[in-house]
Amino acid sequence: MTIFSKIIAREIPCYLIAENENFIAFLDVFPLQKGHVLVVPKIEIDKVFDLPINYLAEMLVFAQPIAKAIEKSFNCNRVSMLTVGLEVPHAHLHLLPINASHDIEFSNKKLQLSKQEFIEVQQLILGNL
Amino acid sequence: MTIFSKIIAREIPCYLIAENENFIAFLDVFPLQKGHVLVVPKIEIDKVFDLPINYLAEMLVFAQPIAKAIEKSFNCNRVSMLTVGLEVPHAHLHLLPINASHDIEFSNKKLQLSKQEFIEVQQLILGNL
Repeated sequence: MTIFSKIIAREIPCYLIAENENFIAFLDVFPLQKGHVLVVPKIEIDKVFDLPINYLAEMLVFAQPIAKAIEKSFNCNRVSMLTVGLEVPHAHLHLLPINASHDIEFSNKKLQLSKQEFIEVQQLILGNL
Repeated sequence: MTIFSKIIAREIPCYLIAENENFIAFLDVFPLQKGHVLVVPKIEIDKVFDLPINYLAEMLVFAQPIAKAIEKSFNCNRVSMLTVGLEVPHAHLHLLPINASHDIEFSNKKLQLSKQEFIEVQQLILGNL
């Protein structure tokens, strides 16, 4: 069971942003930027392009209002989306507010946010959703 | 008219990979890796999450067989997808074969491929599509 499946099963807590039958979105706890959100399908499949076709069709439709809310919440040019997926074998889409192309680099230092700061980020996004 | 619209209108040539009513896919001419493909909607909208909902629903479904063909064609762990979009104001999805998370970094040196090498990459992907 991946860490994301444990979050979906509520065995591990998360800063929830949105959820429907097939997807969940929550804050990345190792954020590259404030507003870094993960969109995760509720089936444990490693590679995004191995997802069943209905998940591929729904993924960006589910992500769109979240991306718009992130864009409104933070000082950014736009919201980038990306899948890398070499660490957790459970497909996930990163939504990331960016101002420059190097903002997407996972070699950048992750932000260290307090619980209070995570809650503020969560509330800000939820308020714009 | 963006450079991508000119490619769609066949005013500028491309190494075509696939095309349907709403999308086109072709080789990125400034590739980070061999097999770097762009998936572009046939409407000139800057930000991917401003695309009409039917484009969002179709984008990954269109991209899936292409991503699978790229994965088969090159020695890679998987195919990453990402939108950055700070350079051309026309939404586009990068499909990129990767082995490590730093393979997605746009600060990496772009490959200089000859016309013959681009055609070989194109034929390899088309052969697996």
